[in-house]
Amino acid sequence: MTQDLPKLEVCLSPALLHLYDTKGSVVVIIDVFRATSTIAAALHNGAKCVVPVASVQECIELGKQTANSITAGERDGKVAEGLEFGNSPSEYPRTFVEGKTLVLTTTNGTRLLHMIEHPATIITGSFLNLSAVCEFLISQGKNVLLGCAAWKDRFNLEDTLFAGAVVNRLKDKFSINCDSARAANYLYEHSAESNPIDFLRNSSHFKRLSAYGLEKDMEYCATPDLHPVVPILHGRELIVHS
Amino acid sequence: MTQDLPKLEVCLSPALLHLYDTKGSVVVIIDVFRATSTIAAALHNGAKCVVPVASVQECIELGKQTANSITAGERDGKVAEGLEFGNSPSEYPRTFVEGKTLVLTTTNGTRLLHMIEHPATIITGSFLNLSAVCEFLISQGKNVLLGCAAWKDRFNLEDTLFAGAVVNRLKDKFSINCDSARAANYLYEHSAESNPIDFLRNSSHFKRLSAYGLEKDMEYCATPDLHPVVPILHGRELIVHS
Repeated sequence: MTQDLPKLEVCLSPALLHLYDTKGSVVVIIDVFRATSTIAAALHNGAKCVVPVASVQECIELGKQTANSITAGERDGKVAEGLEFGNSPSEYPRTFVEGKTLVLTTTNGTRLLHMIEHPATIITGSFLNLSAVCEFLISQGKNVLLGCAAWKDRFNLEDTLFAGAVVNRLKDKFSINCDSARAANYLYEHSAESNPIDFLRNSSHFKRLSAYGLEKDMEYCATPDLHPVVPILHGRELIVHS
Repeated sequence: MTQDLPKLEVCLSPALLHLYDTKGSVVVIIDVFRATSTIAAALHNGAKCVVPVASVQECIELGKQTANSITAGERDGKVAEGLEFGNSPSEYPRTFVEGKTLVLTTTNGTRLLHMIEHPATIITGSFLNLSAVCEFLISQGKNVLLGCAAWKDRFNLEDTLFAGAVVNRLKDKFSINCDSARAANYLYEHSAESNPIDFLRNSSHFKRLSAYGLEKDMEYCATPDLHPVVPILHGRELIVHS
């Protein structure tokens, strides 16, 4: 039976990406704290598109070239010098972001996104759009790689936990023979299904961002389905899949 | 308080080893199915030493050069061509192995072992010598890296689970701010503390080795403290720490 189902795998760090064949697959970029949460929020609130870029300089330059754009990104928990806004989903309400292009620089998430070799379908996932991502993956019927952005290539709990939430919902519809997927599902199923944030309080990233006063932001990022859109990469732009 | 304690971290794959500073640390090489299990069994049963080598050819050559030696190693679940014995802890009873040099070629475990930069203290760990390893780590008082050999760089459940068993026992004696260690401990504490093998039956490696009829071997490898020795690397030889 299961060999007819498409394959679902989990990549725990960008440093392991070379082990997976992503050609023809759907790759879900996961950076829960907070790039892919902010992307879901901005697009759900009407942003025209989000352009993820690697460096602050590239962000500034693209912002100048793009009409009706916002430049955003943080380094060490603060708005990076030369940019206008930060990397919090709560900063992008409809009244502010509607119709605009958000040029966003993040380190881990953007790097992973740019590492994927085409042709692959690239979307972004977070708890904020968990159900929408799962429905999209089922509808496509292709092999799936859940790609955790991690933290400077180090395994992190929050991205793994989100991967586990997806595995948990899709495990009957995909063929899974991947210990990373099993472990992620186990962590989710046995610890965090009812309330991810309680589990994540004891993670490196939560501790790091808490020091910048960002607890509320992380609680928001761990709330399922507040922004039910599927951000999909077209060229260099993430837009809402419709 | 905790900043005075030595640090304990977990590396989930050799492909992530570059993220950790091992200088001056104790590194535990973990290859539960089955290299580090076999090493514990052979040394506990009186082998003079175990010499881990990367290739079958190197194993053959070193065997020829070494008096009273055994060459061993498997590829695809069978004794590799040109070698004498396999990679099962049950193949090395005292009556056979006592006083001999076991030249052992394995892929994942040996590769990781050779990747560690000196100066570091390198030991090997498995469920078969869990308590002995933990006691050694406490006695050293140095930073610790638990290094999972993984499977061709892919995360695997059995090595991670053993890392979790060590974290679980040492968490009050070391400073831990490592999401890999947290996840490993969680998997162990909530799933496998009473019986690791039940958890591991649903792992990629168990399925792969089961196809070669090696279930009993893996059950043996998941049994705590049958071979309570600490294999430590001196030069190119693993010997019993005393």
